[in-house]
Amino acid sequence: MQNLAGWNVAKTLFGTAAAAVLWATLLNGSSMQAQQTGSVNAAELGLMPLPSHFEAGTGSFSLQPGMHVAYAHFHNARLEAGTVRMMTRLQFESGVPLPHIPSQVAGDLSSAAIVLNVAGPGGAVQSIDEDESYSLIVTPKLITLNAPTVVGAFHGMETLLQLVQLKDNAAIIPAVSIEDTPRFRWRGLMIDVSRHFEPVNQIERTLDGMAMVKLNVFHWHLSDDQGFRAESKIYPKLTGVGSNGQFYTQDEMRGVVAYARARGIRVVPEFDIPGHSVSWMVGYPQLGSSKGPFQLPDVAGVHDEAMDPTRESTYVFLNRFVGEMSKIFPDGYFHIGGDEVEGKIWTSNPRIARFMKHKGFETAPQLQTYFSQRVVGIVEKHRKKPIGWDEVLVPGLPKNVMVQSWRGVDSLAAGARQGYTGILSAPYYLDGMKTNETHYLADPIPADTTLTPEQQKLILGGEVCMWAEQLNERTIDSRIWPRTAVMAERFWSPQSDRDVVSMYRRLPKVSIELEQAGLKHITGPAMMRRSISGQVNPTALTALAGVLEPVSFGERSETQHTDGHTPLDRLVDTVVPDPPSRFEIAQDVDAVLNKTSDSTEAEARLTRRFMEWQEIAPMLAAQMQANPRMSDAAIRAQQLGELGSLGLNALSTLNPNNPALHGTALGQARSAAIDDATKPAALVRFTFLDSLRKLVNGGSAAGAAH
Amino acid sequence: MQNLAGWNVAKTLFGTAAAAVLWATLLNGSSMQAQQTGSVNAAELGLMPLPSHFEAGTGSFSLQPGMHVAYAHFHNARLEAGTVRMMTRLQFESGVPLPHIPSQVAGDLSSAAIVLNVAGPGGAVQSIDEDESYSLIVTPKLITLNAPTVVGAFHGMETLLQLVQLKDNAAIIPAVSIEDTPRFRWRGLMIDVSRHFEPVNQIERTLDGMAMVKLNVFHWHLSDDQGFRAESKIYPKLTGVGSNGQFYTQDEMRGVVAYARARGIRVVPEFDIPGHSVSWMVGYPQLGSSKGPFQLPDVAGVHDEAMDPTRESTYVFLNRFVGEMSKIFPDGYFHIGGDEVEGKIWTSNPRIARFMKHKGFETAPQLQTYFSQRVVGIVEKHRKKPIGWDEVLVPGLPKNVMVQSWRGVDSLAAGARQGYTGILSAPYYLDGMKTNETHYLADPIPADTTLTPEQQKLILGGEVCMWAEQLNERTIDSRIWPRTAVMAERFWSPQSDRDVVSMYRRLPKVSIELEQAGLKHITGPAMMRRSISGQVNPTALTALAGVLEPVSFGERSETQHTDGHTPLDRLVDTVVPDPPSRFEIAQDVDAVLNKTSDSTEAEARLTRRFMEWQEIAPMLAAQMQANPRMSDAAIRAQQLGELGSLGLNALSTLNPNNPALHGTALGQARSAAIDDATKPAALVRFTFLDSLRKLVNGGSAAGAAH
Repeated sequence: MQNLAGWNVAKTLFGTAAAAVLWATLLNGSSMQAQQTGSVNAAELGLMPLPSHFEAGTGSFSLQPGMHVAYAHFHNARLEAGTVRMMTRLQFESGVPLPHIPSQVAGDLSSAAIVLNVAGPGGAVQSIDEDESYSLIVTPKLITLNAPTVVGAFHGMETLLQLVQLKDNAAIIPAVSIEDTPRFRWRGLMIDVSRHFEPVNQIERTLDGMAMVKLNVFHWHLSDDQGFRAESKIYPKLTGVGSNGQFYTQDEMRGVVAYARARGIRVVPEFDIPGHSVSWMVGYPQLGSSKGPFQLPDVAGVHDEAMDPTRESTYVFLNRFVGEMSKIFPDGYFHIGGDEVEGKIWTSNPRIARFMKHKGFETAPQLQTYFSQRVVGIVEKHRKKPIGWDEVLVPGLPKNVMVQSWRGVDSLAAGARQGYTGILSAPYYLDGMKTNETHYLADPIPADTTLTPEQQKLILGGEVCMWAEQLNERTIDSRIWPRTAVMAERFWSPQSDRDVVSMYRRLPKVSIELEQAGLKHITGPAMMRRSISGQVNPTALTALAGVLEPVSFGERSETQHTDGHTPLDRLVDTVVPDPPSRFEIAQDVDAVLNKTSDSTEAEARLTRRFMEWQEIAPMLAAQMQANPRMSDAAIRAQQLGELGSLGLNALSTLNPNNPALHGTALGQARSAAIDDATKPAALVRFTFLDSLRKLVNGGSAAGAAH
Repeated sequence: MQNLAGWNVAKTLFGTAAAAVLWATLLNGSSMQAQQTGSVNAAELGLMPLPSHFEAGTGSFSLQPGMHVAYAHFHNARLEAGTVRMMTRLQFESGVPLPHIPSQVAGDLSSAAIVLNVAGPGGAVQSIDEDESYSLIVTPKLITLNAPTVVGAFHGMETLLQLVQLKDNAAIIPAVSIEDTPRFRWRGLMIDVSRHFEPVNQIERTLDGMAMVKLNVFHWHLSDDQGFRAESKIYPKLTGVGSNGQFYTQDEMRGVVAYARARGIRVVPEFDIPGHSVSWMVGYPQLGSSKGPFQLPDVAGVHDEAMDPTRESTYVFLNRFVGEMSKIFPDGYFHIGGDEVEGKIWTSNPRIARFMKHKGFETAPQLQTYFSQRVVGIVEKHRKKPIGWDEVLVPGLPKNVMVQSWRGVDSLAAGARQGYTGILSAPYYLDGMKTNETHYLADPIPADTTLTPEQQKLILGGEVCMWAEQLNERTIDSRIWPRTAVMAERFWSPQSDRDVVSMYRRLPKVSIELEQAGLKHITGPAMMRRSISGQVNPTALTALAGVLEPVSFGERSETQHTDGHTPLDRLVDTVVPDPPSRFEIAQDVDAVLNKTSDSTEAEARLTRRFMEWQEIAPMLAAQMQANPRMSDAAIRAQQLGELGSLGLNALSTLNPNNPALHGTALGQARSAAIDDATKPAALVRFTFLDSLRKLVNGGSAAGAAH
């Protein structure tokens, strides 16, 4: 017992602070001496999301072959399985042989390297009230993870895995003391599997990634106009004719729920009604407001059709269906959509118009409120809390409904003022192809909020949304990751963590870790580039793709008129939003212009980039021109060469003695090249134009100063 | 008749030649004019395996949006599903929007772009007698695929997909007339899932790859000492305590069988007995010859333990077990292993020795023959043909047993002379890390065979074998692919196809196609390099890894003492056997030495390589030295720099006026550098040392000539 100082045991675990101190004194050997070693912080260690409290310790724990785990307190099968996964990953990351077979992972407390001190199992069904906190204390002698629940322990394991470092020819974990608890209770990711279906293994690897960045809600958008994806045994035609054969069986859905639970993630199903519901009506036309028959629409977007709110049979159907799904999805919440209902289909139907008149409804939204109230009743009857998109927030909405805001933080706050719980999604739409910075700084409760503290408590968190009109199984990972990690930090970490540079510096490490866990956000685009070019090692195309990103959903939609048949195999599908190049080039340009200590290296890096662009452009453009999958993008290759020339000229003007440019034949640089390059082409845009413009302008200023 | 030269419709499809001609007249428009356009051959079009008969036509078929398929004759759900997969892949490869939803893929014969002319379904259970032939006729107006069976049609579809070209800003298929039938009926791939388990999705993507190169047998090595991977409901402890929790449920195995059948692939299970069977005994110690209790061994290799052939209860157990598995695996064959039995465990056991004496057996092999005869009887009782490894081939072996030879072509021929059917595996062991050339040239029936034609008929084909001691889910694809495509060609294509240069030139295209289908042989190692280096874009490490390959199984085994706990995350796990560099450097060196028309470009490519090696070596070696997962391999980085200097010196000696070397500071080149680099280190070896030595010697000779 005397070996144990420095262990700040979570208060939830032990009755009193004094008891915690006692445990700490007993379990560690030496004080953490945080005050004396303030040099390292959580950001420098590469953690994402950043923990709420962090203290650096002295020295580090060195991973040793065969070291094992011990359960100091509670353990169950879920925790044990998580421990096996942790040890397997720890072995892989460190290269140190560790036990990773269930029967060998855990052993004696006295000889354990990692002590898992978990108080209890947590909720039989994880709720928003689950205590997800943990504390992690690493000393040179021992790693101690304390948590009130298994879910908290999982979060601590992810932090531990992020701390592993390979240096000085050893695998170590720096001494730290972390106490961590999430800022928001609802940290979600929504995936639309209707517009394009995703196989179960894609969902599973997504859940792995979510767990790594401490997200805790998988919102499964299981139906929309373009396809119904959840098997119903009561209404088999929902998928029988409404899914084109692409759907999840009930066993598969149960499997996903179990897979998620094993990782501390809730699964909230969404069945979007009364709009976005044509896929229901293909098999069950009686649900529609029009007469039918109905066909699955290929084209995405808002369709006029909506469920008929006037027929009692609609509610009988929904009651039986919700009852069936409630058994598959144990979560306390159930999403009923409610967005983007076009009222015309109701008001223009004489029978429905009569019903409205009879009920005294003057507008379609009033009829939707009636529908919502009925459906809310059904959902509550099956002991679930309903969730709806902003549109459900109208007078008369039962207070038990949670509002998911795709309209924005003001809409969300308006709900909170009326007493509704809510989560924010508007700034977290991945198909907007915004920068990580934009996503990172958007806050469910901005610092300048006018909500009262009580109202703020109603804002439960946020959800990243991945709509699927323009992606498929091959590209989805590169649209979700690593960006979602940035928003996961927003939802988990203190509001004050807003250092964008730190975020961009930490992201590549997280990206590699996510890839190790099985995600394909790096390998997928690389594969697509080999496929589109026919080359095993398409270096020129990769250089171009690395400084391009997709245009937004809206722009692609208008330009390409994407629908369910559009091949998603063009250059735009091989590039990723906000790739590292934007940040890297911006940093290097700033270093050069501000003459920081790094400016020489920065200048050399920029020179190398610009020269490569000049060099590869002519042949790459010719290859692309001949390739029907890339010919529309050949102009981007041409532009890359021009932009390279412009950059070299700017560097040369800034520093005529630049040794890296010695002997270089600078190309003809047209100052209009940047303007040309901003024009739309091939659904892709350059990531560095603002930085290049800054460099060119800086160059002019410097030139004028001479 | 005059419009149809080149379309030799398979006789099996149509009753008379006249009927075939009629079809041809109706469906095509213009003559293939094969005689006039002999310039293109199947190898130039990148086919692998090469077809048995090929004629080039005139012009090409241009893929058009919305073009559909028609079934001219038979079709069933299996064919339709295969057609949907083909259209989905055709759309992806070509970028042309094509119908790929089941209800939209097929349409009118008169307006179809692709006519599928399939005579019938083939066997309800695919057998070695399945007719796998097809003919494929592409004209500028129409694509016609004829086949007697669905499996034949699948092979034709794969050929069609390999023919797609993107050029002149169009997606086309060159006009061809192909008649194709496999040389061997048994073209297999074995995967050992005992030493390391592979999840179902790995097996599925393997089956996708097999189908692409026309392999037709998946041999599933489901049990070995280190783990029992097939769920038995009768004997649940087989996986309950004999698998460490990693096994396939019966539903999963049925799923794999269905997945394989949907792609024209048979699944042959192997349960290796009486040796290699400790995993059975962990749950059922009564099967063992020793007393037990038994534990799963971590270390691979030959273990002494074997089943007890003397107890009747052993056969009762096996009879029930084989009966159960026979229902899951409908294939006509059943593999019972039989390899590497150490007789000592029997002869040193007094009870077993008494049994042997009683039966008049003087040696352990005689006892094994007794066991084999009993087990063969059991397998035959369940209406399966038994397969065994070479060791079963002893006097008294029933003639119905097929022999799989891991000992070599002579052992195989010996079996054939005795009237046994057999397949060859010895030269196709992937863990030997041999070159593609070696695998490609090894023939189940060499040209100089002394077997009679009747005996040759008993050689059914071959099987590639992937033993799993030194791989896992992350690395297996890079060990199997693209190499297996080379052996698939050996098994399918005419014996006379032995052009190694052509094979190496075609392989990269096939590799990209395999990757498109979901295999991870390129992305996996790239991911591992990011993981091991912690860099998103580890260019220097990738340059080094690209000219390294793993040492053989034996060398790694002796050096690293691999067992089930060995982390497989070292540099050796990030490199692949016989990577493109070997062939590329060899070609370039030959071009330079022979002063071919390509010699200037070859010299420039070699110069660039050697300079890059020089440049990256110092920093890379330092980084590797600090990294516990790579420190043992840092010497390879140092050597790379020295070898680069040596290469540059050699080029400079050969061509003192080499403009690429103008102004280059050549490093100190030690002539012993090549010898040093051949010494074992870090389980990896350089791929180009023979070529470099040739270049250096050529350089010396050239120098002497001056």
